Amino acid sequence: MTEDRRPAKKPPMRDVLAEAAFALFLERGFERTTVDDIVARAGVGRRSFFRYFPSKEDAVFPDHERCLADMTAFLADAEGGDPVATVCDAARLVLRMYAENPEFSVQRYRLTREVPGLRTYELSVVRRYERTLAGHLERRWAEDPSAGPDASLRAEVIAASVVAAHNNGLRSWLRSGGEGDAGAEVDRALELVRAVWGEADERPAAQVGAVQAVSGGDDEVIVMVARKGAPMWRVVQHIESALGSA
Amino acid sequence: MTEDRRPAKKPPMRDVLAEAAFALFLERGFERTTVDDIVARAGVGRRSFFRYFPSKEDAVFPDHERCLADMTAFLADAEGGDPVATVCDAARLVLRMYAENPEFSVQRYRLTREVPGLRTYELSVVRRYERTLAGHLERRWAEDPSAGPDASLRAEVIAASVVAAHNNGLRSWLRSGGEGDAGAEVDRALELVRAVWGEADERPAAQVGAVQAVSGGDDEVIVMVARKGAPMWRVVQHIESALGSA
Repeated sequence: MTEDRRPAKKPPMRDVLAEAAFALFLERGFERTTVDDIVARAGVGRRSFFRYFPSKEDAVFPDHERCLADMTAFLADAEGGDPVATVCDAARLVLRMYAENPEFSVQRYRLTREVPGLRTYELSVVRRYERTLAGHLERRWAEDPSAGPDASLRAEVIAASVVAAHNNGLRSWLRSGGEGDAGAEVDRALELVRAVWGEADERPAAQVGAVQAVSGGDDEVIVMVARKGAPMWRVVQHIESALGSA
Repeated sequence: MTEDRRPAKKPPMRDVLAEAAFALFLERGFERTTVDDIVARAGVGRRSFFRYFPSKEDAVFPDHERCLADMTAFLADAEGGDPVATVCDAARLVLRMYAENPEFSVQRYRLTREVPGLRTYELSVVRRYERTLAGHLERRWAEDPSAGPDASLRAEVIAASVVAAHNNGLRSWLRSGGEGDAGAEVDRALELVRAVWGEADERPAAQVGAVQAVSGGDDEVIVMVARKGAPMWRVVQHIESALGSA
């Protein structure tokens, strides 16, 4: 029950607990490990555990709170540029956290596959990231008179797409055992979303009005003229309406 | 502990239990209601409850298993046409389930907002719908030589988009207290996804190869010619690459 209050070089208590917990989860399984086992291994009292982690599940994912805080700060600092590119960059912070410690990330991925409670916990965390990204898009578009109606719907759809793409790339890397370039997998996946939903270049979205759609003389071909800088989703809307009315 | 084995007109035991459970959750709160309370109210033994519901949470969402089975069957029967339009239609089955009983759906929505364990349960269910939709897209594209690489990534991103759009429309309706046309809200939301990711019309995706992108002489304008029937995401990819290379 003693707590070291000196500025010591040994790792912080939180890390010691997380490491003890994870070692036991791998040895005995998550369900068969109790908080008493964890604190005994870490050499501290039971209360210390709950001072750092609300539950056993939280000890499996010790860095998500920090990463969520980092993401929130990153988004709060973001100004100008394409909001969709910004939330893609914000998602990369999650990848970076996983890539900091490949062995731990891969072991945890395997453990999580086997324990329904951990999968559920992970879904809750993923949802928090998704809401953080959607919130940023909504705020950015709330200040943008050209964002149009449905900005809140688009924010949710795009945030879900970014998270799905990020997790697709991340899972490929985790399934490969943490081999290869995690960043490249995730970049490729996020690029799919950015290409569809992001602005075509760095110009302000105000030029969107110049998008025109013209359906061809026969019903085989459409011709579309768009000013560069038009957000891709607006271009798509115009193509779609031209096709629909043809 | 008696169980009625006659083909009776009274509601099935499963419904009786779900109704008793829900009435108690509203009266006393979810956490303060025990399974013993529920079976006492329903007039049956404790084992009957667990015969129908693995947990208290399951009794709050008694219809999702049926709806998941309906969705799986619907997708298994789907042949031809645009796979993205098909998964949008499949998502509408979930809406239909909610809209069948607006008062219950609205009350449950409010209850779920207040109980973290129910929100987590709901996330797990949503994830199962999402995987069901993604699985259909992957299977359809696995049989389609023109589907191109990244089909698995696109399947996950589109399934996440469909679910996010559906839930955006559904939540609008639930927040309004179940007033208005739930179908119209969800249709509008799903149309955003279908317009971006779906095929432009009912022709087979094999015509995609005819899409061309030409960047204009100056850097202000792009001109794009696409054969009708090109899937929208391919059109977008071509526009994007024209813009990127200009």
